[in-house]
Amino acid sequence: MASLPKLTNRIQDLRIALKKAGFDGWCVPRTDQFLGEYVPASSERLKWITGFSGSWGMAVIAPKSTALIVDGRYTIQAAKETRAISPEILPPDNDKLVAFLQRVLGKGSVLGFDPWVTSVTEQRRLSKLATQAGATLKASRTNFVDAVWPDQPAPPAEPVYLHPVSRAGESASSKLQRLAKTLAAQNCDCAVLSDPHSVAWALNLRGSDVAHTPLALLRAIIDKKGTAILFVDAQRCAKDVLFSLKGVAKLLPPSALQQELGKLGKQKKRVMIDPAFCPEAIRLHLANGKAHIVEATDPCTLPRARKNAIEQRGTRTAHLRDGAALANFLCWLDREAASGQLSEKAAQDKLESFRRATGKLVDLSFGSISAAGPNAALPHYHVVGAKGGVLKRDGIYLIDSGGQYRDGTTDVTRTVIIGTATAAMKKHNTLVLKGMIAVSEAQFPAGTTGVQLDAFARQALWRHGYDYDHGTGHGVGSFLSVHEGPARISKAGHVALEPGMILSNEPGHYIKGRYGIRIENLLLVKPAFKPKGGDKPMLSFETLTFAPIDKRLIDESVLTRDELQWLDHYHAEVLRKIGSRVDAETRDWLHAACAPFTHKA
Amino acid sequence: MASLPKLTNRIQDLRIALKKAGFDGWCVPRTDQFLGEYVPASSERLKWITGFSGSWGMAVIAPKSTALIVDGRYTIQAAKETRAISPEILPPDNDKLVAFLQRVLGKGSVLGFDPWVTSVTEQRRLSKLATQAGATLKASRTNFVDAVWPDQPAPPAEPVYLHPVSRAGESASSKLQRLAKTLAAQNCDCAVLSDPHSVAWALNLRGSDVAHTPLALLRAIIDKKGTAILFVDAQRCAKDVLFSLKGVAKLLPPSALQQELGKLGKQKKRVMIDPAFCPEAIRLHLANGKAHIVEATDPCTLPRARKNAIEQRGTRTAHLRDGAALANFLCWLDREAASGQLSEKAAQDKLESFRRATGKLVDLSFGSISAAGPNAALPHYHVVGAKGGVLKRDGIYLIDSGGQYRDGTTDVTRTVIIGTATAAMKKHNTLVLKGMIAVSEAQFPAGTTGVQLDAFARQALWRHGYDYDHGTGHGVGSFLSVHEGPARISKAGHVALEPGMILSNEPGHYIKGRYGIRIENLLLVKPAFKPKGGDKPMLSFETLTFAPIDKRLIDESVLTRDELQWLDHYHAEVLRKIGSRVDAETRDWLHAACAPFTHKA
Repeated sequence: MASLPKLTNRIQDLRIALKKAGFDGWCVPRTDQFLGEYVPASSERLKWITGFSGSWGMAVIAPKSTALIVDGRYTIQAAKETRAISPEILPPDNDKLVAFLQRVLGKGSVLGFDPWVTSVTEQRRLSKLATQAGATLKASRTNFVDAVWPDQPAPPAEPVYLHPVSRAGESASSKLQRLAKTLAAQNCDCAVLSDPHSVAWALNLRGSDVAHTPLALLRAIIDKKGTAILFVDAQRCAKDVLFSLKGVAKLLPPSALQQELGKLGKQKKRVMIDPAFCPEAIRLHLANGKAHIVEATDPCTLPRARKNAIEQRGTRTAHLRDGAALANFLCWLDREAASGQLSEKAAQDKLESFRRATGKLVDLSFGSISAAGPNAALPHYHVVGAKGGVLKRDGIYLIDSGGQYRDGTTDVTRTVIIGTATAAMKKHNTLVLKGMIAVSEAQFPAGTTGVQLDAFARQALWRHGYDYDHGTGHGVGSFLSVHEGPARISKAGHVALEPGMILSNEPGHYIKGRYGIRIENLLLVKPAFKPKGGDKPMLSFETLTFAPIDKRLIDESVLTRDELQWLDHYHAEVLRKIGSRVDAETRDWLHAACAPFTHKA
Repeated sequence: MASLPKLTNRIQDLRIALKKAGFDGWCVPRTDQFLGEYVPASSERLKWITGFSGSWGMAVIAPKSTALIVDGRYTIQAAKETRAISPEILPPDNDKLVAFLQRVLGKGSVLGFDPWVTSVTEQRRLSKLATQAGATLKASRTNFVDAVWPDQPAPPAEPVYLHPVSRAGESASSKLQRLAKTLAAQNCDCAVLSDPHSVAWALNLRGSDVAHTPLALLRAIIDKKGTAILFVDAQRCAKDVLFSLKGVAKLLPPSALQQELGKLGKQKKRVMIDPAFCPEAIRLHLANGKAHIVEATDPCTLPRARKNAIEQRGTRTAHLRDGAALANFLCWLDREAASGQLSEKAAQDKLESFRRATGKLVDLSFGSISAAGPNAALPHYHVVGAKGGVLKRDGIYLIDSGGQYRDGTTDVTRTVIIGTATAAMKKHNTLVLKGMIAVSEAQFPAGTTGVQLDAFARQALWRHGYDYDHGTGHGVGSFLSVHEGPARISKAGHVALEPGMILSNEPGHYIKGRYGIRIENLLLVKPAFKPKGGDKPMLSFETLTFAPIDKRLIDESVLTRDELQWLDHYHAEVLRKIGSRVDAETRDWLHAACAPFTHKA
């Protein structure tokens, strides 16, 4: 973390630069020009200027004050980290931002922003709010944080590598042909793929420009003839990448993007952009030409989410490998945590080491949530300091983590008891489990969306007056982002679930200051057996995650016969699938952990 | 029904009139200038010009062809009724309408519409589609159907009567004060209440201008000071109406509306309209002045949906009265239908007569669905011809009906077996019942919307590969429309359920050509008991409908213990609540019909 005087100097420098350029305020979002979840060090502008290190937020720098907008999970952390500049910490509430702008910027003032790090959608929102506050939002060619950041790191330029057809299940040229049909159907000449996830999927490329997602931060333009322009420094690409892209994509340096956008304008092309993932700067470049802009969902979004047979096979293998590593860890944990002195950091490091020991781990798929006792009540907790909290005896421990493997991406949460569970802990954990089972067991007609299924996970909790303030599930990529759209199981899940989609199923229950519970498996949407007499094509879920669920935290009497059978069957499958993959010292433990509650099948 | 030559002549007359006025095509929606579900005879333009008598649809009359847009439930009926003019029957699909317009109207052609019978939202949709087809949508001062309809009935002018505070639970002036606050909060000077349901609610007025809903077709303008202008012919109002409106609303004749809209424009008022319920003509009148139009949800929508304590008490009473009438009918049916010769029409008439015998029935709340055997597989079936189908022995009979009483509006569906049910019938009926029970028993946090609960009703059906193509529940008014927004339990239910809302709960299962099943109770949203340890304010449902559910159609083994207990408890409540209200000859029957499956409580 930067020292406190440093932070105040930085913000002072920024204000001077803004004033010179005629701006009254300046927006500093967490996002970079690729608008993704993870940003490289070179783009950590929000952290550099405010000290705030969270994964989502935005600062608005005014002449004499600063607002920092963060969501509930970061309120306390943000206040701590930004003490030097003591900003007003605001929740993500449009009205509150308008009120702030009204108060600190004069009428007729100019609020600047960098259109490269701001999506079209976000720009529209900010513009509306600025207008409401009597100010004007104005795009700037200069990013003023960059202008006053003398030792800003260079942007990443890690090697770009192939995600071979043997793992992707489809060649880049085949994908481009499919995308071409989508463009033609929507009467578009081409689309700007401004989201690096889409470039990675469409061209079967991966990289390591950011943490946790095997991404190269690249853009491309695809067209209705099935060809592409990839904007990349060719020296980042190994020979096999260059070879595989021959005849598929023309390579141009990233600096050529603006010129190419200009060409599309001159040629009056119909160009598709996705306003949610496209920087406003790209839209401006197109709009300043004569391009006809068609706003639509990124054409890669749905085909990327529908995993093909090869990807499905890959993720199954990855999950068994990952489940075995997790089982090794849980067995180790039972031994090591009994002391009541194990640290959260030591625990998460140990799990990572079990994953690394598979020899196949490329990266964790996100920063692990290793949370003991009251820390587990914070759904987005991350270890603070060198060791974090301690796994106390008779306390709950929650670990939410995942791995990036070449054949698939995992994400799993298990909640265990260190010692002996109270009746309340068992009840709460069993209610969460009931929800997890209800979703796992759901069968539903094609066309069903996630919002329709979300309450299955909550029904048992609701009956006891409980609920959790997060969605039940998010989409998961195939050796790509662990948080992938467009489908999800939540209030905001308005996209139909389709065969091949991978979703998490992670209900929870959190008691502030005491403990938290979450149980998470990944699920694959698949066509269901069509029951005799059934009149609808139905879908259901295949469970991908295989790792024991702590039986010491289960109150058998709270489960129905069907639920008990599900659990016993699940544990039998865990044993069958990962039993031969775990360490020798884990095998006996796993047998006990997977023993059925009931012997009646 | 008009004779066939008549229909061809009418459409010919219309085409001549259109051509003279420079229109190439003309839209004839089912809606009238009040945009409601039911229209008076004077506004049955679609039926007069095409012969189609369904409750929803639109014709587009082109020089040489006609399109009739209807939804799936009317496809067959529409073709029959419109044979004389043989229109192209289209589903409600924008692309298909565009294709029709492209084909039958030339580029640059003008499609006319009457902005009084078309909502702002609908006008926008039509305008977009016309543009896509290369045509222009143009509002017309003349409604050309009216122009060629020599014997068009006069609009209804039935007496307007009071819905007294003793039933409404709140005075008109109190409601206007509350609405004034809503207007002020949204920075509006006034709102045009273009929906007669809102006028009825806000001013505690009722009427009988249309079938099934006790509406007077009136409009009003309310303002932020809590006063109103009601547009009504004063001679329609009894003395008590005039007296009660004194100091609350200024009365002006309906013809004064346009002048008043003009005034709002001149005064540059900020005027709220609800684009979904406001005729485009009103928006045009406002926009042609200098009024600042604020588009928002009709401010009466939510307060109307949240029934107050008096309304809740009223609806409970109405439901017991209605349930007793239904029980009398079901007992009669068991006797009379055994012959296998009873007609659907005779059955629905008998139920109506039992409702009339209460002495309190104002009207049925909608056209009854009295459907035997395969007819029951059509969710929106209505008896055709003098008698309709016959209730055959060992067949299923479904009756969906309701009453308008001064104290409340009812809507109930029961499905019964005439004779002996097959195992499949029992299974299907029991799966539907499981869904009905799951919704009845739901407990959910404040803020939950209908789409989140909808799948509770479907879960058991889905598991067997079944589903139904309609929502699970709609809102219900308080001596007002039986289909009332804004909340519903369906895919489209994006409004939070709030205490006081009344919703139907009516899952079904339909097997084309064989039979259909639906079980419907009305539910009242209420605050739930907050369970010990619960951390969320929770809501649940109170069942309003009390009438036996046919046990001969239930397969006990398909129900869980909890579900059986719910059913036994429900039947015990039915007996307790309506046992003393049914006819003497029904009492024994009711005791048997309500006997528990199990004696363990």
